[in-house]
Amino acid sequence: MALIFEVSEYQERLRKVKESMLRKGIQVLIVSDPANMNYLTGYDGWSFYVHQGLVIALDYDEPIWWGRGMDANGAKLTTWLKHDNIRPYADDYVQNVFKHPMSFVANILREMGWENRHIGVEKDNYWFTGQCLDVLREELPKAKIHDATSLVNWIRTIKSPAEIKYMREAAKVCEHVMKTAIDSIEVGRLESEAAANVYHAMIKGTDEFTGDHPAIFPIMPSNERTSAAHLGWKPDRKYAPGDIILLELCGVRFRYHCPLSRTV
Amino acid sequence: MALIFEVSEYQERLRKVKESMLRKGIQVLIVSDPANMNYLTGYDGWSFYVHQGLVIALDYDEPIWWGRGMDANGAKLTTWLKHDNIRPYADDYVQNVFKHPMSFVANILREMGWENRHIGVEKDNYWFTGQCLDVLREELPKAKIHDATSLVNWIRTIKSPAEIKYMREAAKVCEHVMKTAIDSIEVGRLESEAAANVYHAMIKGTDEFTGDHPAIFPIMPSNERTSAAHLGWKPDRKYAPGDIILLELCGVRFRYHCPLSRTV
Repeated sequence: MALIFEVSEYQERLRKVKESMLRKGIQVLIVSDPANMNYLTGYDGWSFYVHQGLVIALDYDEPIWWGRGMDANGAKLTTWLKHDNIRPYADDYVQNVFKHPMSFVANILREMGWENRHIGVEKDNYWFTGQCLDVLREELPKAKIHDATSLVNWIRTIKSPAEIKYMREAAKVCEHVMKTAIDSIEVGRLESEAAANVYHAMIKGTDEFTGDHPAIFPIMPSNERTSAAHLGWKPDRKYAPGDIILLELCGVRFRYHCPLSRTV
Repeated sequence: MALIFEVSEYQERLRKVKESMLRKGIQVLIVSDPANMNYLTGYDGWSFYVHQGLVIALDYDEPIWWGRGMDANGAKLTTWLKHDNIRPYADDYVQNVFKHPMSFVANILREMGWENRHIGVEKDNYWFTGQCLDVLREELPKAKIHDATSLVNWIRTIKSPAEIKYMREAAKVCEHVMKTAIDSIEVGRLESEAAANVYHAMIKGTDEFTGDHPAIFPIMPSNERTSAAHLGWKPDRKYAPGDIILLELCGVRFRYHCPLSRTV
């Protein structure tokens, strides 16, 4: 287990989530957003292409992590949770049209006696699919399902001193990334070479602070592509005289981002 | 407009999708998966954190792209679609709890006279949320909604010669990436420095083929972290004598991936 915050910080986050659940009349919350999973437990694996999440109940101490069997070790290594609260599902739940991971979650809820409760789901979060909703309704016909889409996200908006420290460090990385980008853009050079230098600076960071990979690729379109909001570089194109390049970059420190935008 | 395939290739893909729709009794298909959007139209913007997609009807020539207003220029620059078939929604649809982009899609369907048809949705794809499903059911009470989760994905499994060419080029980039990783892992070096070199190699590519950013970060855990399936490097850790490192890397060429796994 190697957490980037004290366990007490995660527990304080959980306390605030439970407080918000109580205010909204939600007894059990199913969290699907990977960033929210990370925020509450530290879980940090690239496993979100399969269904996974947390179950949080007002009267249960820790979140219950549920996910694919092969990711359970990752959960043991990156979260503060007791191993009993890490609940892996078998691989035949993976992309099986006859057997859905939300049935596995419903089983946990039944086992805990929570199946008829007021249940909050992140209903418009893109890790909670239409199928998740239908399976949950079918499996737990007596539950009252509530939309709790941004419940955790609103709590995340107020940063702790420890988080602000990482964001300040990310800002230092960001300065370095932006400088690298500006220095790398030169007539005759491939756009992909400038982008490669930007990525290198993002991941390696500065001598003081190591970086991290970004949640969004470097936005660095040239010329007519600057008229669009979310385009990257053009791999095979070389910079030409008179080019305008839009730079929307960031520095990252332990998943905490600091973005910056410039035109060159 | 700068496509990486001939327009005829996109049209052939569309023809196959319509053939599959016909077989499954689906008259209108709503595509939400960004990779499927790219496959069918070329659309290539980092804009999937807002609702966006395609509408494909058996009796309508082109897909209709729908998405956020600020991304419409990106759609004009990266797809083969007529500008009339690019349908942007206003910004007050973005993360508004009272107004959902799926209502905008329902408006398009009504306008085209498709509101009572058999409509396929990518129901268990994580870009189609529970809320999307509920809004669509509410807006189009007479439509018959079908699960078409992997319809496009099954068609994508059979690669064209042009796609295989990019995959072979991605394999060349992948060899270079793997070699860079092995050369970068050294006792006393920060794991983040090796990861930075790996990213640089991925994006810059070889002298022959430029690379691209990967859909998954470099999986390169060390020691006890190799017991888990999907962990990355540990930014602040230095490699130590006797370390075992699991490498699951890839080369990418215009979004086409070629993965490779090794242990060092």
